[in-house]
Amino acid sequence: MVTDPKLDLVLERIVDVSPELVWMAWTRPEHLKKWFTPAPWTTVDCEIDLKPGGMFRTVMRSPEGQEFPNLGCYLEVVPNRKLVWTGALEPGYRPARPNPNVPFYFTAFILMEPHGKGTRYQAIVLHADEEGRKKHDAMGFHTGWGKALDQLVEHMKTARG
Amino acid sequence: MVTDPKLDLVLERIVDVSPELVWMAWTRPEHLKKWFTPAPWTTVDCEIDLKPGGMFRTVMRSPEGQEFPNLGCYLEVVPNRKLVWTGALEPGYRPARPNPNVPFYFTAFILMEPHGKGTRYQAIVLHADEEGRKKHDAMGFHTGWGKALDQLVEHMKTARG
Repeated sequence: MVTDPKLDLVLERIVDVSPELVWMAWTRPEHLKKWFTPAPWTTVDCEIDLKPGGMFRTVMRSPEGQEFPNLGCYLEVVPNRKLVWTGALEPGYRPARPNPNVPFYFTAFILMEPHGKGTRYQAIVLHADEEGRKKHDAMGFHTGWGKALDQLVEHMKTARG
Repeated sequence: MVTDPKLDLVLERIVDVSPELVWMAWTRPEHLKKWFTPAPWTTVDCEIDLKPGGMFRTVMRSPEGQEFPNLGCYLEVVPNRKLVWTGALEPGYRPARPNPNVPFYFTAFILMEPHGKGTRYQAIVLHADEEGRKKHDAMGFHTGWGKALDQLVEHMKTARG
């Protein structure tokens, strides 16, 4: 996949859980809630309708107890290989309502392929413009998504189904 | 498909060309340019990459010669049955750049099914909010999309492949 360094953010890593376990972590709410937000933030709710046009909804809670809902729409679902969703559309592909609490929209590609017994993992995040990418970068994209991925690996090593 | 009368606009008609010809009219630039804009407006350019994530780009020209480019992204492509695209995403699923010339985004579903020798045709257009639907309605959605459909039928009755 070709990326644009001015508009996109990319996290790439080799992790030592299989693509099947990474997929499960991303697509089952009971797993996703365990790792999706870097501690001490938590993910207190998650709804997944795993098909193009289906809902991807999460609620994150800050250490102070404030809740932040996120609503998105899946675009591509290729089991154990590729998951794509966007916040620019609501479920059913409806354009998202303008929301002053959302500083920018992004579309995320989560790509995974076998690498030995583990996974070559890529998270590629597309923004509308350079401003969006810079904001997301300044919010700590690499640290945040990296720490969440550590949590994913840790959780899936002990989780079974 | 369930629609929301506060947020969606719907044009439904029985037309006397087959679903295959309606599909061809929507998916091949050389045909689309013949009918897509109600005369005396014209469609002077069209680019189609017919797959989810692919480009749907048109340029409309007003009778005064002013050109209006439109860029969108296909979401679902089911030959002879269903075509879905949105202007809220650019090709490759990138969120659309904020553009003051775009008063609202919409996602369009073009649905067709056999009806005798013709087609039951539905155009269902989803907006983010009531304001978007109202603006689109006031711009003459039903007249405009209806007249374009008349042109589509007329053109495809004489076109062959």
